Amino acid sequence: MRLLNQVNQPSDLRNLSMEELNELAQEIREVLLQKLSKHGGHFGPNLGMVEATIAMHYVFNSPVDKIVFDVSHQSYAHKILTGRREAFIEEEKYDDVTGYSNPDESEHDFFKIGHTSTSISLASGLAKARDLKEENYNVIAVIGDGSLSGGEALEGLDFAGEQDTNLIIVVNDNQMSIAENHGGLYKNLKQLRESNGTCKCNLFQAMGLDYVYQNEGNNIEKLIETFEKVKDMDHPIVVHINTQKGKGYQLAEENKENWHFCAPFELATGKPIKAVAGENYAVLTRDYLLEKMKHDPKVVAVLAATPKTLAFTEEKRKLAGKQLVDVGIAEEHAVALVSGIAKNGGKPIFATSSSFIQRTYDQLSQDLCINQNPATILVGSASVYGWNDVTHLGIFDIPMISNIPNMVYLAPTSKEEYFAMLDWSIEQKEHPVAIRIPANGVVSDERKVDTDYGCLNRYKVEEKGSKVAILALGHFYQLGEKVKKELEHQLGICATLINPRYITGLDTELLEDLKANHEIVITLEDGILEGGFGEKVATFYGDSRMLVKNYGIRKSFPDRYVVEELLKENRITKEQIVEDIEKLCKC
Amino acid sequence: MRLLNQVNQPSDLRNLSMEELNELAQEIREVLLQKLSKHGGHFGPNLGMVEATIAMHYVFNSPVDKIVFDVSHQSYAHKILTGRREAFIEEEKYDDVTGYSNPDESEHDFFKIGHTSTSISLASGLAKARDLKEENYNVIAVIGDGSLSGGEALEGLDFAGEQDTNLIIVVNDNQMSIAENHGGLYKNLKQLRESNGTCKCNLFQAMGLDYVYQNEGNNIEKLIETFEKVKDMDHPIVVHINTQKGKGYQLAEENKENWHFCAPFELATGKPIKAVAGENYAVLTRDYLLEKMKHDPKVVAVLAATPKTLAFTEEKRKLAGKQLVDVGIAEEHAVALVSGIAKNGGKPIFATSSSFIQRTYDQLSQDLCINQNPATILVGSASVYGWNDVTHLGIFDIPMISNIPNMVYLAPTSKEEYFAMLDWSIEQKEHPVAIRIPANGVVSDERKVDTDYGCLNRYKVEEKGSKVAILALGHFYQLGEKVKKELEHQLGICATLINPRYITGLDTELLEDLKANHEIVITLEDGILEGGFGEKVATFYGDSRMLVKNYGIRKSFPDRYVVEELLKENRITKEQIVEDIEKLCKC
Repeated sequence: MRLLNQVNQPSDLRNLSMEELNELAQEIREVLLQKLSKHGGHFGPNLGMVEATIAMHYVFNSPVDKIVFDVSHQSYAHKILTGRREAFIEEEKYDDVTGYSNPDESEHDFFKIGHTSTSISLASGLAKARDLKEENYNVIAVIGDGSLSGGEALEGLDFAGEQDTNLIIVVNDNQMSIAENHGGLYKNLKQLRESNGTCKCNLFQAMGLDYVYQNEGNNIEKLIETFEKVKDMDHPIVVHINTQKGKGYQLAEENKENWHFCAPFELATGKPIKAVAGENYAVLTRDYLLEKMKHDPKVVAVLAATPKTLAFTEEKRKLAGKQLVDVGIAEEHAVALVSGIAKNGGKPIFATSSSFIQRTYDQLSQDLCINQNPATILVGSASVYGWNDVTHLGIFDIPMISNIPNMVYLAPTSKEEYFAMLDWSIEQKEHPVAIRIPANGVVSDERKVDTDYGCLNRYKVEEKGSKVAILALGHFYQLGEKVKKELEHQLGICATLINPRYITGLDTELLEDLKANHEIVITLEDGILEGGFGEKVATFYGDSRMLVKNYGIRKSFPDRYVVEELLKENRITKEQIVEDIEKLCKC
Repeated sequence: MRLLNQVNQPSDLRNLSMEELNELAQEIREVLLQKLSKHGGHFGPNLGMVEATIAMHYVFNSPVDKIVFDVSHQSYAHKILTGRREAFIEEEKYDDVTGYSNPDESEHDFFKIGHTSTSISLASGLAKARDLKEENYNVIAVIGDGSLSGGEALEGLDFAGEQDTNLIIVVNDNQMSIAENHGGLYKNLKQLRESNGTCKCNLFQAMGLDYVYQNEGNNIEKLIETFEKVKDMDHPIVVHINTQKGKGYQLAEENKENWHFCAPFELATGKPIKAVAGENYAVLTRDYLLEKMKHDPKVVAVLAATPKTLAFTEEKRKLAGKQLVDVGIAEEHAVALVSGIAKNGGKPIFATSSSFIQRTYDQLSQDLCINQNPATILVGSASVYGWNDVTHLGIFDIPMISNIPNMVYLAPTSKEEYFAMLDWSIEQKEHPVAIRIPANGVVSDERKVDTDYGCLNRYKVEEKGSKVAILALGHFYQLGEKVKKELEHQLGICATLINPRYITGLDTELLEDLKANHEIVITLEDGILEGGFGEKVATFYGDSRMLVKNYGIRKSFPDRYVVEELLKENRITKEQIVEDIEKLCKC
């Protein structure tokens, strides 16, 4: 790490010769390989951007010049060059930095970013403020080709194309989204690459932008030349660079999709250190859908650039053929698309994560729910047990989805119930349905499940008791079981255990009946409390003497939390809940 | 109406000669002018699309061939030609049809649509289902140039560009959004128009689409020729037609912005029949901002193609200069943009309506609130008193916005409080702030208002009482005043009247204190109950003996409702509320 140790800030790069810069790139790549193999993280995007990051920091004067990384999952080299190299070199410091850009860490970072397609708009904002203040410097957005298909990015490009001020948009074209790209614009990127940027039909120019192409996106010298040319430009320009995703690690170069993100692995062989064992809903759902597709040509799965959400590997995608649609990073389009498919008699299933479904509020409301088309939305990683980066939390989907009229949002409590709900949803013709995929492992139990969920908002009393009723939503059902046991054990209370099943409505009849021999109702949900399920139950009982206690996460943006700690802070452990109930009993 | 009376369904058009088709266009235009002048509605878009609608219905075989209108505010001629002409001719039937496409009215309509930029995605869905079912017909999306800047439309174009199936995208280019277009792509549309579609740099081709241009977009014969050419095509194609917005009414041809939408007016002079009198928040806010801009170059207003939201006429836009940014129809971009501006020391204010802010959930959450940048969002028409079309309801913003962490959503109760909050918001540096513009007229009263709202979630006790506390949110404060009076009058109860001010948090101290001498708390909010403000209060008191009753609209998509009826159905009249409280007193 001879050279790396000399770079404490980006300006130190200017003391190095070209040869040394190239050597530095190798050092950075080595550091990345070491950390990624031990720690896991975004692999391909970071290995591909080493040279471009060095070149940008060589040419531009960060943090006066401001670089905004899209998704920011390719910002590791940037972090290394901006004073944070120890977090990549020293194993005990690995977690001192997040996996995304983070202004709390460094003045060289401007936003906490994790979702795609935002960089051009955010950078446009920095540039606009610069101009209002009559300051002078470069603002640079770095965006991958995969992110370009997202509506926000395209809106940003279009906006930038009308401005008459400095804005440099580096399009890092590695010819990949997470999987292969989808969308017509990628044909144009290909034409541009193949014509060395000279093709007359040019998406960026059609958006009103100036344009320059650099074919050797992993060549520091060429990149420096190119960036020097656009530096201090008085109008927006796209710098289209052709990079190699996963560069420097053969397995990643050969299989870009598998190496977009990695868990800890053996550097020599590429084999994951911990094998993932047991069933998971992605594979189960995929196999169920493939079987369903065989018998019904109207069944179609829709994904938005994350085929792994449903374990659709390349091989399985081929198997599904026309009955699988990857729309690219375009969640808004995906929701409108499935609404249209459902309207015309198809049976569409759009699967995404809780964090990414956030991109579709208006489409869920307008395109889908007002029209009441029977599409199915599968919501994954919707849990405190999901991703724990602040930018990818899965705890907001209940407030976001469940308050939209006409939507039926289901919360299965077991494998059997999940598939029963999914099958019902695909076959019914009345409702837009979302299903919250359980996130506490694949739990299979003996409870009988219904096959028809068309009679909305009927909760299921799984175990009858008295005094205390536990409404345990979705995969918090198992927590409800534990609370029930603990109540029996500690307080001698035989509680009623209820599986609400429907997030989107109250079983007012059942809730009314509970008044007869219950004094306390508790609700358990895996997500934020505010705007969620439990609050509705509290409102229902507001004008009665029933005591209600809602359990969920307090509205917040926790970052890289430890699940058990977060639950404890929010009093969502069986011990704390029983303690609370004991107190309530004395009210 | 000689010819119009012969057209009961689109196929009847094929019995008419070209001359008769042209005469028919004049008849339709006459009908539109009559209805619009008496009833109001979207003016320019409909007058411009008469010929294209006739030509489409002449060439295509609706409803087997399926036409999806973007926004669908240009679908009046379509309605006239598809069996609904009486609703345009007979005054007493004017309201038999909605102002947008509506499958409940006709098999020729496929979606209830009102937001922009959705047609390509929805049509893609119809086409995909058609292909899965192995059926054969044309699917046509009709989208205006203004709608093209919206992310969902661009995602849709990009998706379509990869498909290998029939999809016809008619781009109705009238060189206008609601006001002038904004965005770089409009330079390309201009180049295309000026080169008669031959310009090599072509946005649509860059998106992977086939393309054809028709310069005479108000010439039925030419349009028929063009549509005949693309009919039954086996791949997606853009048909770019150049139309004249407001065609056939001179005033509208001359001032397209003012005639996008019209209230009832005098046909001879164009003068509105009812003059709008008194103060309104659009004008007041604009004047306040213009004054502010004069003294602080960092203040910048951002609008998304709806300058009238803040009464920014062309003249006033010029006055604001660089301190006003119209991003075009691109709300997602707008939110990220203001986040960037705020991050870099600017003072941005983005103003839009409750219905359109829905398009930005993820940007509010990710781009803005995670980053805690001090941008201001003004939310207008957020009320049952706002637009009452199902596609433009203003009753969902509280659940959507207020459950996002870090957001401070304020609900002013008077003109003085609104401007105090706005001023505080613009100058503070800590929080993303949204302000719900009062929607019950401009109410000015004697109450003192604070200037600093930085100490979050402190509710204001406006009138101290006991037994019953009324939490009257935002512009329902005046309803709270009425309820208080009525309670005093009818039940002799001197209630406490509270102005919560903060939608996004509970004043737990105050709520706790109320327990001392109050038995009943009611909450009043102008929006849906589910996920809203009142539920949080109910949850707070859930484990106590306080009785809570929440007033708001039950989750639903009411369409063209009468406000007083909707309020009554939801028991939100002072009489009903007092009746409920009387019952609760006996609990």
